[in-house]
Amino acid sequence: LVKGYYPYTGILGHEFVGEVVEAQDASWIGRRVVGEINVVCHRCEQCRNGRPTHCENRTVLGIVRRDGTFAEYTQLPLTNLHRVPDSLPDELAVFTEPLAAALEIQQQIQIKPADRVLVVGAGRLGQLIAQTLALTGCDLRVVARHVRQQELVRARGLKVLSEEEIQPWRWDVVVEATGSPDGFSLARQAVRPRGTLVMKSTYQGEMSVNFSSIVVDEINIVGSRCGPFEPALRLMESRQVDPTVLISDEFKLDEALKAFERAAQPGVLKVLVEI
Amino acid sequence: LVKGYYPYTGILGHEFVGEVVEAQDASWIGRRVVGEINVVCHRCEQCRNGRPTHCENRTVLGIVRRDGTFAEYTQLPLTNLHRVPDSLPDELAVFTEPLAAALEIQQQIQIKPADRVLVVGAGRLGQLIAQTLALTGCDLRVVARHVRQQELVRARGLKVLSEEEIQPWRWDVVVEATGSPDGFSLARQAVRPRGTLVMKSTYQGEMSVNFSSIVVDEINIVGSRCGPFEPALRLMESRQVDPTVLISDEFKLDEALKAFERAAQPGVLKVLVEI
Repeated sequence: LVKGYYPYTGILGHEFVGEVVEAQDASWIGRRVVGEINVVCHRCEQCRNGRPTHCENRTVLGIVRRDGTFAEYTQLPLTNLHRVPDSLPDELAVFTEPLAAALEIQQQIQIKPADRVLVVGAGRLGQLIAQTLALTGCDLRVVARHVRQQELVRARGLKVLSEEEIQPWRWDVVVEATGSPDGFSLARQAVRPRGTLVMKSTYQGEMSVNFSSIVVDEINIVGSRCGPFEPALRLMESRQVDPTVLISDEFKLDEALKAFERAAQPGVLKVLVEI
Repeated sequence: LVKGYYPYTGILGHEFVGEVVEAQDASWIGRRVVGEINVVCHRCEQCRNGRPTHCENRTVLGIVRRDGTFAEYTQLPLTNLHRVPDSLPDELAVFTEPLAAALEIQQQIQIKPADRVLVVGAGRLGQLIAQTLALTGCDLRVVARHVRQQELVRARGLKVLSEEEIQPWRWDVVVEATGSPDGFSLARQAVRPRGTLVMKSTYQGEMSVNFSSIVVDEINIVGSRCGPFEPALRLMESRQVDPTVLISDEFKLDEALKAFERAAQPGVLKVLVEI
């Protein structure tokens, strides 16, 4: 967003944990909360058919026509909020949104324990996806380019695969989490006939793809973004996933520009900003 | 294939009905048969995992390293053959292969009776797809460009939609059966968030696609080709589908070049060649 690939202007920030200081329903005041980022109309065809994250009139926190959370205060409808269990420190709770996005994969497709699953890309989202997919017992490999990423994968007891080691045409499910055409190409080659390619990142501009081979191999491509918050909170409460390993640094809000610089450095995954 | 988009040289033809004149198991001799076009190894990973049409060592009748059926005689393993019921005339049985390809859609995804389904393209395969999808009771529309195609759709009691009438972001399932980037673009715009886009035709070269929007809308893209023969035979035996309406002309084998010319004329759908 900072680089301008999407025409948003306003306050950035959509992953947060905060405290309610004002609300029509006073019982919320003082509660520690996380919040879903899509603010929806409840009336359009998507909302009425159980797809509120696809609301045709939505604003999105820090992304589409709605100021985000790098600020002293932010606003969301109460229906967007989820209470954070007391046992969950802020450093965990702040990961609810991206962890929910990782879990969206399993809202969309079934990962079977015997599946061979490849995650291409081990950045912020790739790491969370690897942690959640590992819980299925599936035969999981993670393609991690950078040493720090590889270390994090291995520290969870998971297996790293180099790009050269990827066997083509072999993986039941491949998750593309790099956001680059190279990553897509790797993922496409890895997936087996009738396998599923989950696309978890967005791409700048258009991408040139051989669709004939996708038809011939009967590949299933699934676009995937925002996911369910409550399961994310549950998995952190039970400590079955631990996103805090991604935290590289923390800054106060008045040093937020430094936080952005730090976040842009190679090998840095998550940087927290505290108000 | 005649235009050379795929590097095949050899005898063309992969949709046929014929009589067995020679076989190791003599009980097949004299039988009227249709045949699956993929000749497979039964040993590779795909075959062993129940995906023989994706055999890594396959030859394909009239398409990949195997002479096809525009000939007095052709050869296939007995395991590829299906007996044609006596009640099924040759003019129906010859459609088993493309009708099976149409049915592959329902092998891959569930079409619900209340689904809104759009078929983009009403050529040979689009017509068969429309006939089979209509059997589900779904709310079906067919985008047919040419008058003859529109007539055929309406003659089945089905509804035609013009390109201008397609509501964007509305259809639960959209089947792309044009094989053109324009058709893909139409289909992509029509499918609703979290809807399914079935790709039923191949494309020349690469196609440029906005994958970010596919991620944001969480679209499911499913490549689809060869399908099950027995259901195709059953649906024709019970006359629940009638592919014979597609037949524009018939030629003898020694006039096969004329048959190709005729098949290339606008509005002509199927041309049969009789040995």
